[in-house]
Amino acid sequence: MNAHEIIADVLRRKTKVDNIWWVACGGSLIDLMPANSLLQREGTTLSSHACTAREFTIMIPKKLGAHSLVIACSHSGNTPEVVGACRLARETGAYVIALTDAKGSKIDTGEWPVWVYPWGEGVPAAEVPAGISLWLAAELLDQQERYADFGNMTSGIAAMDEIIRSARVRVRNGLADRFASMCRDHEFLYIVGSGPNFSQTYGFAICSLMEMQWQNCCYIHSGEYFHGPLEVTEPGVFYFLQMGSSEFRTMDERARGFLKTHTDSLIVLDALEYGMKAIPESVRAYLDPVLFYAMNCEMRSARGRLFKHDPDVRRYMGVESY
Amino acid sequence: MNAHEIIADVLRRKTKVDNIWWVACGGSLIDLMPANSLLQREGTTLSSHACTAREFTIMIPKKLGAHSLVIACSHSGNTPEVVGACRLARETGAYVIALTDAKGSKIDTGEWPVWVYPWGEGVPAAEVPAGISLWLAAELLDQQERYADFGNMTSGIAAMDEIIRSARVRVRNGLADRFASMCRDHEFLYIVGSGPNFSQTYGFAICSLMEMQWQNCCYIHSGEYFHGPLEVTEPGVFYFLQMGSSEFRTMDERARGFLKTHTDSLIVLDALEYGMKAIPESVRAYLDPVLFYAMNCEMRSARGRLFKHDPDVRRYMGVESY
Repeated sequence: MNAHEIIADVLRRKTKVDNIWWVACGGSLIDLMPANSLLQREGTTLSSHACTAREFTIMIPKKLGAHSLVIACSHSGNTPEVVGACRLARETGAYVIALTDAKGSKIDTGEWPVWVYPWGEGVPAAEVPAGISLWLAAELLDQQERYADFGNMTSGIAAMDEIIRSARVRVRNGLADRFASMCRDHEFLYIVGSGPNFSQTYGFAICSLMEMQWQNCCYIHSGEYFHGPLEVTEPGVFYFLQMGSSEFRTMDERARGFLKTHTDSLIVLDALEYGMKAIPESVRAYLDPVLFYAMNCEMRSARGRLFKHDPDVRRYMGVESY
Repeated sequence: MNAHEIIADVLRRKTKVDNIWWVACGGSLIDLMPANSLLQREGTTLSSHACTAREFTIMIPKKLGAHSLVIACSHSGNTPEVVGACRLARETGAYVIALTDAKGSKIDTGEWPVWVYPWGEGVPAAEVPAGISLWLAAELLDQQERYADFGNMTSGIAAMDEIIRSARVRVRNGLADRFASMCRDHEFLYIVGSGPNFSQTYGFAICSLMEMQWQNCCYIHSGEYFHGPLEVTEPGVFYFLQMGSSEFRTMDERARGFLKTHTDSLIVLDALEYGMKAIPESVRAYLDPVLFYAMNCEMRSARGRLFKHDPDVRRYMGVESY
């Protein structure tokens, strides 16, 4: 599939996109969030929203219709909430695009265009949902309004593979083991981050740690941290701070300043020290999440080795009915 | 102040509102979120977004301008992030309205209309930000598009005071003490909720518990729960489920079904059993948060009594500089 041609087709059929909805669940929703942030910030002729699929079908936005675009993602292709959301959106006249790793799955029925993506370590960022969604968003901005940083975005996405390759090795031989042993010594941790990267703050918590490591934790926005959550901070409370490389970094820096002097249990992963300097400043905010996702995987693997807890093991998902 | 006249003035000056931004921090942002949900769902001629103030000033949405409305809230009136956001929004040509409890504070400078509200137990829901923001949103919808449930919304807000009065007594003599003793027996808890009420799921975590009780906890969306977070559930892990009374309830019911059989440490507060049946179904989703906020206060007070931790005590906020 090709984002340029898909968006050209959308605009041929819809003339203009007035509103776009990014709809998925859990990890798949997280991958779409930075693209939503890009459109919320840069869009002047359209509005953009991200919503977990079940909530989307319950609230059914009234403006959903002939000038709407719904971009959905279901990794397995069989998530009932996402398939339901696509069907409902289609009935309103919206243009629906579905991303999935599974050709022939329940979302791949011929009712809407389906982008089947490959998956696994080593697959380029441009070919998985985090990259595809940014590419679709950048195309929509560029074709409908013109997006001055379009070239920076596409070259930035392409540059992420090499950045991740080096960052992986460094984290694997450094922070990841420290993270794992901090988990051994603490019952619980807070993950802190901001901007479009807050998607991966949430993602590290609910996917890598809760789902894949059965590790209790919580996610806190670096800006919101100073309006309540900081009161729990004290020596012995474990924080993992995701320092972004973009203009949102100032919020993370403020959190780091406070955490450094108010807890003895802090790990900081600073994107600027892991290669993000090579990315044009204007698109770093949207690509930080691509780096952090890969680093989250390293952290959970290291924890998995120390705890002898294979990240692929589930006790409920795909095991029980609920 | 009067929401009808404010919105009439907005529309007189702007002709049409194209986009609205709800901007605040922590507890004040939480109070604005249900109004944002209402507009996201019902609006056909406008888009609506909620954003923590510092992030808002960093991202500066490009569409902010002559057809924008920014509704900000700072309880103390001195939150620098919120004052900064108002000033920046004003410079783009947006219409700014600020809510505050503090007349003459830094947000009350004559640069924009300021709605000074009273505060404290017993102040009617219609007169505090949770009610004011819903009233402003309903007026905007009604005056710009027509909102069929306008009457239900205003009578619903008015009916909340009596519902809360009875619910308070029941929770005070029931669930609140059970909640407090569960906190004594568990290091940590998850709060689960959905829909517009997810604002109070987040709020219970970061304001009532983290800020006012130094209690470690995390907030989980009932729909997202099944896409990762459920894997941490097991006997001994403490969950507090906020069961809404609206169409979003189906997500909470599904979570309750799973939690009931997968942990022995569950407290459920069911809005339907605490008076929400008296509210018209079409607006319950937006008024559940008003009930849950009041119940959150009861829970934290009960915990405060058991732990001898006064909810008004802070160790950093207003004490240290950061």
